[in-house]
Amino acid sequence: MAAPQKKRTTKNAQSMAKGQRDISISEFFTKNRHLLGFDSPAKALLTTIKEAVDNSLDACEEAGIQPRLFVEIRSDKPVNLGLELSSQETKPKNGNGKNGGKSGNKEDRFKLIIEDNGPGIVKEQIPKIFGKLLYGSKFHSLKQSRGQQGIGISAAGMYGQLTTGQPVVIYSRTGVDEPAHRFKVKLDMKKNQPTILEGDETIWDKEHGTRIEITLTGSYKRGQHSVDNYLEQTSIANPHVHLTYKNPKGEIALYPNSTDSLPVEPREIKPHPYGVELGILARMLVDTKSRNITAFMKDEFCRVGAKTCENILTEANIPPRRNPRKLGQVDIQRLLDAIEVTKIAAPPTDCLSPIGEELVMAGLKSGVEADFYTSVTRPAAVYRGNPFQIEVGIAYGGNLPGDELAKVIRYANRVPLLYQASACGIHKAVLGASWRNYGVQQSRGALPTAPMVILIHMASVWVPFTSESKEAVAHYPEIIKEMTLALQEAGRQLKRHINRRAREKDALKKQSYIQKYIPYIGEALQEILGIDDVERDEVIATLTDTLERSRKL
Amino acid sequence: MAAPQKKRTTKNAQSMAKGQRDISISEFFTKNRHLLGFDSPAKALLTTIKEAVDNSLDACEEAGIQPRLFVEIRSDKPVNLGLELSSQETKPKNGNGKNGGKSGNKEDRFKLIIEDNGPGIVKEQIPKIFGKLLYGSKFHSLKQSRGQQGIGISAAGMYGQLTTGQPVVIYSRTGVDEPAHRFKVKLDMKKNQPTILEGDETIWDKEHGTRIEITLTGSYKRGQHSVDNYLEQTSIANPHVHLTYKNPKGEIALYPNSTDSLPVEPREIKPHPYGVELGILARMLVDTKSRNITAFMKDEFCRVGAKTCENILTEANIPPRRNPRKLGQVDIQRLLDAIEVTKIAAPPTDCLSPIGEELVMAGLKSGVEADFYTSVTRPAAVYRGNPFQIEVGIAYGGNLPGDELAKVIRYANRVPLLYQASACGIHKAVLGASWRNYGVQQSRGALPTAPMVILIHMASVWVPFTSESKEAVAHYPEIIKEMTLALQEAGRQLKRHINRRAREKDALKKQSYIQKYIPYIGEALQEILGIDDVERDEVIATLTDTLERSRKL
Repeated sequence: MAAPQKKRTTKNAQSMAKGQRDISISEFFTKNRHLLGFDSPAKALLTTIKEAVDNSLDACEEAGIQPRLFVEIRSDKPVNLGLELSSQETKPKNGNGKNGGKSGNKEDRFKLIIEDNGPGIVKEQIPKIFGKLLYGSKFHSLKQSRGQQGIGISAAGMYGQLTTGQPVVIYSRTGVDEPAHRFKVKLDMKKNQPTILEGDETIWDKEHGTRIEITLTGSYKRGQHSVDNYLEQTSIANPHVHLTYKNPKGEIALYPNSTDSLPVEPREIKPHPYGVELGILARMLVDTKSRNITAFMKDEFCRVGAKTCENILTEANIPPRRNPRKLGQVDIQRLLDAIEVTKIAAPPTDCLSPIGEELVMAGLKSGVEADFYTSVTRPAAVYRGNPFQIEVGIAYGGNLPGDELAKVIRYANRVPLLYQASACGIHKAVLGASWRNYGVQQSRGALPTAPMVILIHMASVWVPFTSESKEAVAHYPEIIKEMTLALQEAGRQLKRHINRRAREKDALKKQSYIQKYIPYIGEALQEILGIDDVERDEVIATLTDTLERSRKL
Repeated sequence: MAAPQKKRTTKNAQSMAKGQRDISISEFFTKNRHLLGFDSPAKALLTTIKEAVDNSLDACEEAGIQPRLFVEIRSDKPVNLGLELSSQETKPKNGNGKNGGKSGNKEDRFKLIIEDNGPGIVKEQIPKIFGKLLYGSKFHSLKQSRGQQGIGISAAGMYGQLTTGQPVVIYSRTGVDEPAHRFKVKLDMKKNQPTILEGDETIWDKEHGTRIEITLTGSYKRGQHSVDNYLEQTSIANPHVHLTYKNPKGEIALYPNSTDSLPVEPREIKPHPYGVELGILARMLVDTKSRNITAFMKDEFCRVGAKTCENILTEANIPPRRNPRKLGQVDIQRLLDAIEVTKIAAPPTDCLSPIGEELVMAGLKSGVEADFYTSVTRPAAVYRGNPFQIEVGIAYGGNLPGDELAKVIRYANRVPLLYQASACGIHKAVLGASWRNYGVQQSRGALPTAPMVILIHMASVWVPFTSESKEAVAHYPEIIKEMTLALQEAGRQLKRHINRRAREKDALKKQSYIQKYIPYIGEALQEILGIDDVERDEVIATLTDTLERSRKL
């Protein structure tokens, strides 16, 4: 190591060194809250509900329980501080101070309640799940689920705490023979650790499930980016979910389940060799419990059987009994190069749980009134070693507005994506799908203009989002390509419908045209052939009849 | 606390609990590397250089040293593994395997070298700065700087390690009387801690400075998103920087400094009361060293003097000698409400260091050939308690293409922003500036169409980026508004230029028209007045002369 340092380093390098500090992950995300979807009061409200609903649905499905959810946004006036009257008498609130420099977004205080009939959470886990960022079960596993980072629900709790000082309240019960628990948890922002304010047994009439209450300042709005819209879209893509929603005005919306069968349980898979990188491989080689490189390759990756393994190791010139922990830098590079040139089967795709063509169509029909519906579920494909699958549904015509841009509904692992449409790979795929080929108007660089709703769903063991707030899918070329293929297939079906409609319209036009002239034809024939009025009327009747019959064909 | 739990909890809640784990911040960012700007090989190359250059410039300026930087991208063939020949003989690389499923981006291996003449880094700090995410001096201070998160350079090192297995190599020397050190550092991805492979004294001919070498796989490209373009734009906004750049082809570009004076040293400020939130305030009250609430308010915030403090505390009904650590939830809410309704001066703005109108103009002139240049530096403004300042420069006409969309060059704290233009607040402000008012064509929803380059710079103690990769400014209404005002001011100056040009062109047209008829006027006069040829020519000469003189006016 270095020799002892002399005392004469320049003042600047040393004084700068004094400023260097650790940054806690909670401090980081507090300052960068827009990364998590908390950049405006309206979005904070939506993000919190979204994270809680995602978790509830994941947990129910994992436990094989048909989800019944209750979501409520309740106005929550802060404790009367004896301040409001006097301050309102002397000066109008927001007149002078802080809100002058604010964005003008109206903020109110709400209590959000999300309750499910899921498996509950064992009590030891409750504090960490709700009071610690980057803690969860989904990050380390390759499995299709709504949550993936272990950051969402604790960030929502942190935001509530930041804006109202209130802890997250959790009720949980894991079974009818178990006691229910009520926890109040805060997040220590310097240590990124939970602080338990309360954690006692309680009486709860639910047999099993979880209930969360988060108090925060937010803003309740209607429209495209609203909680209302999010929950409606959730029910379209999750027809097995029974959902009751009460908004701050006390209005209740009920979304009953339209099917009783749960989605196919997605399987967890191992990483595929094509997706691995040098640094990751090096770490896996150190962490493995396998005693030789052959076992390592077969145990830690999917699609590596005896023959494939032999091919790779021969190519890499590594003995099959070699201890994986003894591989050096050069060996690892060799191994990686060998993987690259060896033919390995694509990863298994039964780990995915798409919605399915039938239910996509049923969902669209329940949510959108149109003339024509179609849906396409593509076979599974792979990006960077991760299996994924694309589904598209189209609703067309009916009462949908014909002179507006088509509406695109985006989903990732059954979760609706409401923000950042133009940054999303799904949007890019829709833009690029050459709609004019399918009889639909489209200006350059714009969405198609048509009475149309397009639904796209990406199911994957790992959805690459453009930010932690999970609002847009990153532009991986393999993903865009699959989306394009699905859109084209649905587009061809749409084209057949549009063509048929056009032909029908055309035939109708021709027919009414001919119909109009049939009497004149009759009269002309009468004149030329010298037939009488009865014969003329017979001819007219025959012609009309023929026309009718040809129309029916 | 809870009663001891019975053994009969449902199997599912318990088996799920077993999957719950901590996620290390390095694992998180490895899996989510696109959040840090490493989502493609070309971007990885640019991001690495950008992070290193940002750090070098920040350090030089902080130490009052005029920056001299050397940047090199060197092709780096991996060690010959004895594999290449045989594998190329038997099958073409990329024919079968991995790259079939890849994005098709060509990847090569490069060694990136960034060397500065800055103050150096004291040796104890080197490992953490380069081998630990979320470690740095800028996150906790409100001060205008290029870096702000303590994540960039260590993430770049991590990416290099991930793709090539190579450590970051650092040379550093803090003064002519000090030894130089050479470190080789890796990042332990499970612990988010540095591993020091080497850290010895060495011989280095530099008197003081830092040199970094990072080996990574990337892709070198020209064009809009290139390192070449980034460095050129950096030199435009940083006229005090001397920069030498060597690309992988060995071509050298030199950007000498065009001024010798360093930018004004930005001052660090304290937070402004209007920017504080309940959760943050609660933590500050616990952490403070102040013994009473009056001292707390005056010490921890800017713009809170004796009178303002008295106003706030009276409004909040909190005794001035109260111990800050003793304030309860209700008191804190009261204090916050009182801050909101009290008039407090805007934060100081001399903490900002804008480029200045003169240097913005000089920068544009050095980088863009045009007919007309203008620049505007707005007074400082405030968003969420953070001071910021907007500058705009416009270059117009000359050889710039007139039938293309205007080019927008975006800067945040003097750093060029190359990616995610359409997601950026700067882009939104330019779109919204009603260019037709200033004589410039603009289609609805598009950038103006004109021979024009628009430069916008945002300087702030905290730039709100839309992601950690720092590519786009978030859409805070206060920021967009200031940008719009700056654009409008520059737009009015541009309009005067365009109008003047139009008038000149008009006058020239009239003049050449009159000039053409002067001889005929002469002849007509000769005929009417019966003057001789000499007199006629005199009249023509006088008329021409008058016209010339009127033109000069």
